[in-house]
Amino acid sequence: MQLIYAAASPFARKTRVVASETGLTSRLGLIETTVLPVDVNERVNAVNPLGKIPVLLTDDGEALYDSRVICEYLDSLHDKPRLFPADPGRRWRTLRLAALADGVMEAAVLTRYERAARPAERQWDEWVDGQLAKVRRGLASLEVSTDLLNEPLDIAQIGVACALGYLDFRFAELNWRHESPKLAAFNEQFADRDSMRSTAPV
Amino acid sequence: MQLIYAAASPFARKTRVVASETGLTSRLGLIETTVLPVDVNERVNAVNPLGKIPVLLTDDGEALYDSRVICEYLDSLHDKPRLFPADPGRRWRTLRLAALADGVMEAAVLTRYERAARPAERQWDEWVDGQLAKVRRGLASLEVSTDLLNEPLDIAQIGVACALGYLDFRFAELNWRHESPKLAAFNEQFADRDSMRSTAPV
Repeated sequence: MQLIYAAASPFARKTRVVASETGLTSRLGLIETTVLPVDVNERVNAVNPLGKIPVLLTDDGEALYDSRVICEYLDSLHDKPRLFPADPGRRWRTLRLAALADGVMEAAVLTRYERAARPAERQWDEWVDGQLAKVRRGLASLEVSTDLLNEPLDIAQIGVACALGYLDFRFAELNWRHESPKLAAFNEQFADRDSMRSTAPV
Repeated sequence: MQLIYAAASPFARKTRVVASETGLTSRLGLIETTVLPVDVNERVNAVNPLGKIPVLLTDDGEALYDSRVICEYLDSLHDKPRLFPADPGRRWRTLRLAALADGVMEAAVLTRYERAARPAERQWDEWVDGQLAKVRRGLASLEVSTDLLNEPLDIAQIGVACALGYLDFRFAELNWRHESPKLAAFNEQFADRDSMRSTAPV
């Protein structure tokens, strides 16, 4: 299998962490690239018409996306406990939390596009404010539900940790730990995993 | 159960079509609202920190999101054939197609935000061009894979039909049928289902 990814992408990082945690790293070739909605990346477009990463090229010759589909696919390839729990009691809560983490990443990435890619005179403060409000409310919600981020390891913990890692990488000025001490404690422990250390953006 | 939705949202429409196709409509109360990233919707924020719809309030008192999680949850509540196929031979292909449909919707909705919500002097043509290129490449990819949109009914067909319905609703000028005759034929038949007729945006 080969994963087309960008080192800075929290969505791609999720898939790499899943591969690491499930013992699949040695079966996964890595192809690094970068994408931006206003640029054309023919290599990515050829396998994902949306022009987004990550894309997983499977051994069967299929191109899989988006990150959620790739994570669930990888989770079907190993014999350890599932990261996407099958038990309904845990499954929906876990998928909801993972969707929250994805939404925080999405709002942060849209903010990054606004500030770093768009010409200054075309930037709109209300858009940034609206997206960062999603991030802040998301963190506040996670702060009061850190008890849901306990072991056993699942896709929600991985998603939350990748979202927090992206905030540290691109939005250090948010100083998110200040209002989220429980989440900070979760993150300090989780970020120390090999899977997280080996995929940290630099 | 109660679904918080917006009539214009293709993501919310997916969940309503799934409820209809799986015989769950009578169990699903509907709460209509509207959201915009630059506005504050306290009712939605209270149940989804991301401030997005759809949100499903389950009979157990949980709030589920996003649309993909809601669709899969609803699909676990009925005894008909599953819309999310369990067989690996179909599952990953179906989820990939459903993700493509979601990505087309996402790009179209971002274009709509750019054009309809953002002040004219803050709009950036390259952004719109980049997002509409995702839509066009997505449609071109679907056009050559309409054989994957055959029965039995699954979440990919529903997603594609909702994406096309949104393009008709907000982007009639794209005239997508012109370059996508096979997709147009698929859509003409699919849009005639009760589930699609009863959820069409007006």
